[in-house]
Amino acid sequence: LVSHPSLANDELSKMSKDSKQWVMQSGDYANQRYSSLKQITTTNVKELRPVWTFSTGVLRGHEGGPLVVGDVMYVHTPFPNIVYALDLTNQGRILWKYEPKQDPNVIPVMCCDTVNRGVAYGDGKIILNQADANVVALDAKTGKELWKVANGDAKKGETMTGAPVIVKDKVLVGISGGEFGVQGRMTAYNLKDGSVAWKAYSVGPDDQMLIDPQKTMNLGKPVGANSSLSTWQGDQWKTGGGATWGWTSYDPQLNLIYYGSGNPSTWNPKQRPGDNKWSMTIFARDADTGMAKWVYQMTPHDEWDYDGVNEMILADIKVKGTPVKALVHFDRNGFAYTMNRETGELLVAEKYDPAVNWATHVDMKTGRPEVVAQYSTDKNGEDKNTKGVCPAALGSKDQQPASYSPDTGLFYVPTNHVCMDYEPFKVSYTAGQPYVGATLSMFPPKGETHLGNFIAWDASAGKIVWSNKETFSVWSGALTTAGGVAFYGTLEGYLKAVDMKTGKELYKFKTPSGIIGNVTTYEHGGKQYIAVLSGVGGWAGIGMAAGLGGDTDGLGAVGAYKQLSNYTQLGGVLTVFALP
Amino acid sequence: LVSHPSLANDELSKMSKDSKQWVMQSGDYANQRYSSLKQITTTNVKELRPVWTFSTGVLRGHEGGPLVVGDVMYVHTPFPNIVYALDLTNQGRILWKYEPKQDPNVIPVMCCDTVNRGVAYGDGKIILNQADANVVALDAKTGKELWKVANGDAKKGETMTGAPVIVKDKVLVGISGGEFGVQGRMTAYNLKDGSVAWKAYSVGPDDQMLIDPQKTMNLGKPVGANSSLSTWQGDQWKTGGGATWGWTSYDPQLNLIYYGSGNPSTWNPKQRPGDNKWSMTIFARDADTGMAKWVYQMTPHDEWDYDGVNEMILADIKVKGTPVKALVHFDRNGFAYTMNRETGELLVAEKYDPAVNWATHVDMKTGRPEVVAQYSTDKNGEDKNTKGVCPAALGSKDQQPASYSPDTGLFYVPTNHVCMDYEPFKVSYTAGQPYVGATLSMFPPKGETHLGNFIAWDASAGKIVWSNKETFSVWSGALTTAGGVAFYGTLEGYLKAVDMKTGKELYKFKTPSGIIGNVTTYEHGGKQYIAVLSGVGGWAGIGMAAGLGGDTDGLGAVGAYKQLSNYTQLGGVLTVFALP
Ligand SMILES: O=C(O)c1cc(C(=O)O)c2c(n1)C(=O)C(=O)c1cc(C(=O)O)[nH]c1-2
Ligand SMILES: O=C(O)c1cc(C(=O)O)c2c(n1)C(=O)C(=O)c1cc(C(=O)O)[nH]c1-2
Repeated sequence: LVSHPSLANDELSKMSKDSKQWVMQSGDYANQRYSSLKQITTTNVKELRPVWTFSTGVLRGHEGGPLVVGDVMYVHTPFPNIVYALDLTNQGRILWKYEPKQDPNVIPVMCCDTVNRGVAYGDGKIILNQADANVVALDAKTGKELWKVANGDAKKGETMTGAPVIVKDKVLVGISGGEFGVQGRMTAYNLKDGSVAWKAYSVGPDDQMLIDPQKTMNLGKPVGANSSLSTWQGDQWKTGGGATWGWTSYDPQLNLIYYGSGNPSTWNPKQRPGDNKWSMTIFARDADTGMAKWVYQMTPHDEWDYDGVNEMILADIKVKGTPVKALVHFDRNGFAYTMNRETGELLVAEKYDPAVNWATHVDMKTGRPEVVAQYSTDKNGEDKNTKGVCPAALGSKDQQPASYSPDTGLFYVPTNHVCMDYEPFKVSYTAGQPYVGATLSMFPPKGETHLGNFIAWDASAGKIVWSNKETFSVWSGALTTAGGVAFYGTLEGYLKAVDMKTGKELYKFKTPSGIIGNVTTYEHGGKQYIAVLSGVGGWAGIGMAAGLGGDTDGLGAVGAYKQLSNYTQLGGVLTVFALP
Repeated sequence: LVSHPSLANDELSKMSKDSKQWVMQSGDYANQRYSSLKQITTTNVKELRPVWTFSTGVLRGHEGGPLVVGDVMYVHTPFPNIVYALDLTNQGRILWKYEPKQDPNVIPVMCCDTVNRGVAYGDGKIILNQADANVVALDAKTGKELWKVANGDAKKGETMTGAPVIVKDKVLVGISGGEFGVQGRMTAYNLKDGSVAWKAYSVGPDDQMLIDPQKTMNLGKPVGANSSLSTWQGDQWKTGGGATWGWTSYDPQLNLIYYGSGNPSTWNPKQRPGDNKWSMTIFARDADTGMAKWVYQMTPHDEWDYDGVNEMILADIKVKGTPVKALVHFDRNGFAYTMNRETGELLVAEKYDPAVNWATHVDMKTGRPEVVAQYSTDKNGEDKNTKGVCPAALGSKDQQPASYSPDTGLFYVPTNHVCMDYEPFKVSYTAGQPYVGATLSMFPPKGETHLGNFIAWDASAGKIVWSNKETFSVWSGALTTAGGVAFYGTLEGYLKAVDMKTGKELYKFKTPSGIIGNVTTYEHGGKQYIAVLSGVGGWAGIGMAAGLGGDTDGLGAVGAYKQLSNYTQLGGVLTVFALP
């Protein structure tokens, strides 16, 4: 018997290069969200119009987006995590529907709305990460369940919102629960039957973390023994967080996967002295074994909830004149990092929102941010309200993924422009109960009223090329296209098209609800389509999604986005656009 | 002090003639649903496209439609009956939102989904009929509650789904609950403060019914004393039904309002011998006093649940060469009635679906249908399944209103093409419990597969002019326009535009969910718009709306419409269309 570990990968790699399809949530393994389709151009995009629409039958935040595989579109929903297979030859007629049965008690242990960032396709299967931490494989043709495994225990606050990623014969699955003291990890399941291939924790002993003290590197040096354990007091790492609810990318040449870990638990930094490694960290791991090749912690000893999970975009670019296999990462903490993705070397770290004030800069030798004392919630201490920290806990960017265009060499980034007051308080751990320990409120930077920008970023210079103001944070993922048009959605519900060179707005359409989904494109029957889910929610929309009203409700996000309900209401609709 | 009883009426009458606005659910008092706007024509309608959309934040059946008053659009939802005021100068930005607090226990006592057929505007007020039988007046500018009155008791199964109608200084409000043994009635509230002006029951003593034995006419003769009481056994009329959940029209010259009453309770005809007057009846009443001018019962002693509530369309047409102030009514029982609306004289009564088989014809002298014994559920008796009755209980047409075009002189009718098996059984009355007493199943007529037609009808000849097959019943209200285009929605979710002369389909667009709302049109900023609510449900969509799966569930409707879930899912979205 010969095993074919690379089969699914080969097929997927090939399919992801066929711009007519959209076979993984990020468009490709590099997480570039770029399409070489170019029927829709800066000249004709104003003629765009909806051509069909589809209500998912579910309200609340719709993150992620549809997959397109051949003639079939796969659409997922927030809890209860329904999956639809829609017939593209027949305006979305439903081929099959899969609706898992889940205990609704999982809803209150999801920190930031009942979101789900989408399904994965590979080897004739659709993989779904359920909210209740079950991973399910469905037959892509029939929707029949093939296998199902528990990736966590919702009773302990372990849930899932992130999209699975299929690499070779494995499914990579993260976990949520940084607000419930989970021990974050990335797990690789065998695509065939759901058995565990490897599991790598974000915090803890080296063997649990799949760290080799000698071979796992940090800014060019081996991490050494107990690199995580030595940065925690006692057993605190066991409820130490570092959840892995964001995006995963993959470099087939290097055979490395990349993803980030989230905040250390609790949000009260006083309670967990030390760097709290490897929370807030970029991990580069071997795709077959899970062994860590390199790590880099953006925010040691987090005092602001700046989860490091935002997507790693892999792009071969010139950095200061030299061609680099780069990884570009727009962190919650407001710095955009350009790294050598092979070595983990730090090349550029600059603020991508001028409002960022919690640190002056990143020390390029140590890789550590220079924290401004005034904004240190640890220094100011428990039961003290640290005021005016920028960005807010939801970062200068959150789950909404950016896009890279090889045509312009620029990154197109949906951003937040929000600051906060942060007051830590003592909290004790109880399984399944919030382990937060801070009261927050959020607002725009002083003297300003807009809560977001959509920017173009030069990752070599570490500079904003252009920036468009948005009334609310841009919580939707961007798409770039060879037609010279970038697309993104707004919390008010507009799908917008802008000129990638100048940022000039070329088209907008008010979809049924606020957009926190990611814009995708595909070609069918010779025609280019643009598709996006609308359905307001996520952390920014948690007020409406969960029916909360107090300014500090929803972990502090409700106040800042209160005006949103004057523009849009809950929904759950796919809108598909095309030229006439 | 001088009272101005006609003020609201004058204003509304005038506004309803301004085709730029859409100030009442039916477009005008005559319930014609015709607009003299004609920018959109048979030639250019293919260029139509959505220009903005709005998710209502509510799922399940969205009946009725938006009102347009000046720069403001008023949109309502099914339970919990939210009302939005949207700014037309700003793509539907929300000016205010009103969300009543209602006990969700009303949901299970609504027979046919949590629908609501829309709000009324008059005298600066928005009137909302809540599901729980409360009538609320809101300030149209601010959404502030001005008054609120209880029009019934939901604990007894009294609910509201029908749209209020404002005539002069009064609000006309019906009641639902024919499946719960309510005593149906029409109530006129004073628009000013919600006090009762008059109340007229559908069944019972003459004084309760506002019937004058001498002056209230039936086919040219006075009805005589106790015309209702004498057709019921004992006290049965007290739980006798005749609900008034449909549409009301008004003739300002005659000062008469028109509406129909629903089924006698229970659905088991054996239990209630007699004609069960005045269930299943068209009422013409004086708008000021409520006194009945004339009555006409379409289906004496109903044995099939053929509620008589469908809209009365008032049109001045020629009937067999003679100009008549006509009332045209497409009854659930499958006959289309053309009457003289001044006198109540019966002019034409013909089948508008050739499948109708329960009666051979209507005797034009007595006005009574000639029942075919084979299809008499009363003759066949209790616990006997009477098979193959056409139409099914939901009629050849149900709540979905037809439209009349003065340009073509034809009526455009969304119809059902459904038959049933009907098995009555003994049931006893308990307040607040279903009082149905029959098991039903539904299916297309023998040898056919389509469940609906959209037809053009000649009300003088009593003949179908053209008929378009539809896969499912057309549960959406029609619109006709001076541009020669008729519009309607389908249960799969298509908005369709057809040539009024030929029925030729000119345009269709797949909206997010099945359409059971009514198509409306208005002009704003010099441009004609088409607007429609999508959101599948109602009786036809009850399987999806209430999550029912058995063929005889949902009062028998679930089986026939099972395939619908392959085309669309629950939703709640307003789609607004325009030409480029
Ligand atoms: O630490 C965690 O486990 C965790 C999970 C999630 C999630 O699963 O959605 C979010 C966050 N943290 C978080 O910090 C955050 O800002 C956030 C935003 C969102 C969202 O979908 O809008 N989810 C999450
Ligand atoms: O007798 C009643 O009180 C009553 C109420 C309603 C309603 O309020 O919606 C319907 C009916 N009957 C009914 O017979 C019927 O076919 C029906 C269809 C619908 C609908 O909205 O789709 N409602 C109702």
